Amino acid sequence: MEWYKDTIQIRTQGKGLYPFTPGIQEIVQQSGISEGMCYLYIQHTSASLAVSESYDPSAKIDLETFMEKLVPEGQSWFRHTLEGPDDSTSHMRALLTLTSLSVPIDDHQLSLGTWQGVYLFEHRTRSHQRRVLVRCLGID
Amino acid sequence: MEWYKDTIQIRTQGKGLYPFTPGIQEIVQQSGISEGMCYLYIQHTSASLAVSESYDPSAKIDLETFMEKLVPEGQSWFRHTLEGPDDSTSHMRALLTLTSLSVPIDDHQLSLGTWQGVYLFEHRTRSHQRRVLVRCLGID
Amino acid sequence: MEWYKDTIQIRTQGKGLYPFTPGIQEIVQQSGISEGMCYLYIQHTSASLAVSESYDPSAKIDLETFMEKLVPEGQSWFRHTLEGPDDSTSHMRALLTLTSLSVPIDDHQLSLGTWQGVYLFEHRTRSHQRRVLVRCLGID
Repeated sequence: MEWYKDTIQIRTQGKGLYPFTPGIQEIVQQSGISEGMCYLYIQHTSASLAVSESYDPSAKIDLETFMEKLVPEGQSWFRHTLEGPDDSTSHMRALLTLTSLSVPIDDHQLSLGTWQGVYLFEHRTRSHQRRVLVRCLGID
Repeated sequence: MEWYKDTIQIRTQGKGLYPFTPGIQEIVQQSGISEGMCYLYIQHTSASLAVSESYDPSAKIDLETFMEKLVPEGQSWFRHTLEGPDDSTSHMRALLTLTSLSVPIDDHQLSLGTWQGVYLFEHRTRSHQRRVLVRCLGID
Repeated sequence: MEWYKDTIQIRTQGKGLYPFTPGIQEIVQQSGISEGMCYLYIQHTSASLAVSESYDPSAKIDLETFMEKLVPEGQSWFRHTLEGPDDSTSHMRALLTLTSLSVPIDDHQLSLGTWQGVYLFEHRTRSHQRRVLVRCLGID
């Protein structure tokens, strides 16, 4: 069994989907693991993980707009407003998406589907430094 | 440590929840693994995974109706419409559900709850061939 | 490789978020595992898992209110109503949140972010006994 650990740091500049598939693939390469699992874990409550269409930029824009409409900011009933109108919504949006993600590794690569990309979904307006823990388990 | 890998192919006929628990249980049986983890990963951005009530068919119908209402198709603000009014919504619906799922194996079986079933959630209107990667890790 | 298994039982008293991070940390301690993964799996279709802000109680209240508004109970189109107006919504709310969660273990502890807590999200009005399977994999 092999084990390889690393952390991906992502600097966000406001709300939206930030692709980071290449960063994960690089870690899988460095691990030397040919077959096993890659575990991703995001250590935040106002940003989350998502896997989505990575080819057409219009899909990304629609997902971002969709989240704005599904979870509107600044509602009168919000109590958790200390950090502004995007404070409580950031936790709601994180709740609806992913905190952890487990992707198979085959032939030294993440086994993503043809059109899949891995994204960090930033839910805060301000710029943030985000951390995604990466753990690779090799079965050799 | 044991490792067993397989892929489940599911032919969908339009939107909705497709149960496939028996296919996973069969792979777990074939793996010979008595205890460990079973990892599921779907390689698509317009279909996703879900665990839900498997006994009463009315629960399934309500979940499908709910998704139609929560994420309505053909909105005027959609930009990602190349493949029709269900194109962008398929990514939105996948975003709100699961891409990966990790279920314990005990006594050569998936440790699902009494009423739980594993489903593929198809979000496209057209028929599709879908792939779910299955990886079983045995701890013996 | 090490393997440690346990089950957390949580008695819920109606809908809402129930924090149980200390129960998981205790299992990780008992496992003696210094480094690896902790897998959580909930065996229910009307309760689910969530990771969210654990510091300010107002965040929890807003998340609970949000779910009430996003998935309103007792809709006229529900078919799955045998157990009341919160029956079908419990499956919908579970669908939008998590069934499984995989968290890295480092230095004998769950590697949660500073503000993160792990919650069981109860979606039924009545009191329930809930079960979350915990599996710890050590890489030593």
